[in-house]
Amino acid sequence: MNTTVVTDEMGRRISGHRDRFQALFKSYFHSLRGSWDAPGLSHFAPEALDRVEELALRGGKRQRVAFVYEAMSLVPGTGRQDAVDTAALSIELLQAHLLIHDDIIDDAPTRRGGPSTYYAYRNTIPDRPQHALGLALLTGDLALTLSLQVIADAALPAWMAQTMTQWQLTAATSTVLGQIFDLERDFLGIPDEDLLHSVCDYKAARSSALAPLQLGLLAAEQDPREHDESLRRYAWAFGVSGQMRDDYLSLFGDEKITGKPATADVRDGRVTYPIRTVLLTASLSERKVLDSVLGRPDASDADVDDVRQIIRDHRVDRTLLTDMRRYAERASQEAATWSSWGEAEAVAFFRGVPVWGMERLL
Amino acid sequence: MNTTVVTDEMGRRISGHRDRFQALFKSYFHSLRGSWDAPGLSHFAPEALDRVEELALRGGKRQRVAFVYEAMSLVPGTGRQDAVDTAALSIELLQAHLLIHDDIIDDAPTRRGGPSTYYAYRNTIPDRPQHALGLALLTGDLALTLSLQVIADAALPAWMAQTMTQWQLTAATSTVLGQIFDLERDFLGIPDEDLLHSVCDYKAARSSALAPLQLGLLAAEQDPREHDESLRRYAWAFGVSGQMRDDYLSLFGDEKITGKPATADVRDGRVTYPIRTVLLTASLSERKVLDSVLGRPDASDADVDDVRQIIRDHRVDRTLLTDMRRYAERASQEAATWSSWGEAEAVAFFRGVPVWGMERLL
Repeated sequence: MNTTVVTDEMGRRISGHRDRFQALFKSYFHSLRGSWDAPGLSHFAPEALDRVEELALRGGKRQRVAFVYEAMSLVPGTGRQDAVDTAALSIELLQAHLLIHDDIIDDAPTRRGGPSTYYAYRNTIPDRPQHALGLALLTGDLALTLSLQVIADAALPAWMAQTMTQWQLTAATSTVLGQIFDLERDFLGIPDEDLLHSVCDYKAARSSALAPLQLGLLAAEQDPREHDESLRRYAWAFGVSGQMRDDYLSLFGDEKITGKPATADVRDGRVTYPIRTVLLTASLSERKVLDSVLGRPDASDADVDDVRQIIRDHRVDRTLLTDMRRYAERASQEAATWSSWGEAEAVAFFRGVPVWGMERLL
Repeated sequence: MNTTVVTDEMGRRISGHRDRFQALFKSYFHSLRGSWDAPGLSHFAPEALDRVEELALRGGKRQRVAFVYEAMSLVPGTGRQDAVDTAALSIELLQAHLLIHDDIIDDAPTRRGGPSTYYAYRNTIPDRPQHALGLALLTGDLALTLSLQVIADAALPAWMAQTMTQWQLTAATSTVLGQIFDLERDFLGIPDEDLLHSVCDYKAARSSALAPLQLGLLAAEQDPREHDESLRRYAWAFGVSGQMRDDYLSLFGDEKITGKPATADVRDGRVTYPIRTVLLTASLSERKVLDSVLGRPDASDADVDDVRQIIRDHRVDRTLLTDMRRYAERASQEAATWSSWGEAEAVAFFRGVPVWGMERLL
């Protein structure tokens, strides 16, 4: 297999899904505005809707959307276009909810290369930080209710709507739990690797990989429970490798590509995969440096460089790259088993995408 | 009609529904804990669940719950007990979501006579206010997903589950919009009375009166859309009269009964019904006093007393009592029309409860 060709083909397919979806997403917000049951006297309510739309459209490669459409293509036949579109809308709205609330929790000024919703409000009404917090929180709540309402409002068979709602609710609850584990991590000194795995399973893998797979299959009128264990293994390995890539990029990546400063994790004191490993392996004197820099919001760029150097000295950056490729490979192998029931082209997509995701940004 | 008898009977019925529901609620949380898909390594996740339960059980008279059960009794026959219980659980969980997020938005330390969820976290981890905010926000998110999951998990016919989900989603979106209008109110100087009506319609009436009525009828397998306009009129008038009562109590009420300080609205600068009226009618010198006290968190008790005196001088307190009784009477008259299709005893409940709610605390 020629890797270069796979990579180009992968990018082309993902862009195709993304472009198609962007048009759908815009038209969803357009018609929502027309039908929305909100009194004309409010200026803030339409603004909240604008902010959900703006953040959602700012999305990058739309891996989740590609997963939904490709999962439907796993099943022979055409599937229900209205169902797969509904699923994609629901998944991206749920993601918007997650991001908006996550940025309040982390007090994060930037997201996807622009201001976070929280800071967008803070910039608009700088003299009223409490109101900005309230409006951002409510905008996130709105994205969550919309993500479920889009299913309820679609003209789907009752059993399909009910199942879709159930899985999206499970995904929503999972992301809430994942964010709770994420906060908990910072209370634990050096947490177990299992907790780090749980954070990315609950916070990302279930809503960004598992639910898209489930909903795509459901849109093809296939019961995903037949393949439940395998879908979960795939989503988990894909999620862990993706988290490791993000952890790597947030230390060593190009800010212009990642859309957030490559110093944030250090200054926020987040115990990511590489930070955890280096905390376990550092010498006493290195540990002193780490403890004096990690979690210090006013740490200088030189301080952060010191942390990077200690990570490199222990070759933790190399180990991390090896590990993330290993998990990507594991996901890929899991997808290979789907050829017993899935269409070849879509199986090839799911086999290729974990490795493609690794190489693309590195 | 003997008012005293009506009042006692009303209290007895509401307590009956409440006591029955408290047992149901406890057993719901008990079984949720047993089945919950959350890794054992987290301490914070079960704590979030505990906090939802604790706040939800701290509820007062449970007017919403009484509405659900009485609405089912409007329809001849027995109705579905599993459906009405599911509806009641969903409605109280949605209310918990609303309260938890509302107290973050308002930075409110107390709720229902105890600490708000936000401040409960702040008290537990006083050195980490940002984490406390995050955990409270996520606990509120959790209450929202649970309020819908309880419907998805119940063994109801698909059409009934779908309709219930749809209405609860509409109620949830309404409360979000109502909270947005609520924040907007504080930006507008002296807002239109229509905006105040919209705040209580969206923030309270739809989730606390309309949705319980709809879901109770649905549990009796009756399509509430047949009575849609009348149910909405009832819920609206009931909601406005209830809001006026709360506004009155939050100025002149007994803190031991209301569970929150009778100075909060003044110090927070909330433009409630009475504050709006007095702002419109105050003389220039009185207006100076009002402007210097309203919205000043450090206003003294004597300052707040000055505001109360100006309100009394303009007889705004008397007008408010007259208005709230007028709206309660309007709701009562609306319920009287239901005797053409509803069972007499339940119709009497809905006729009596608006006035009962007025007199009980005054």
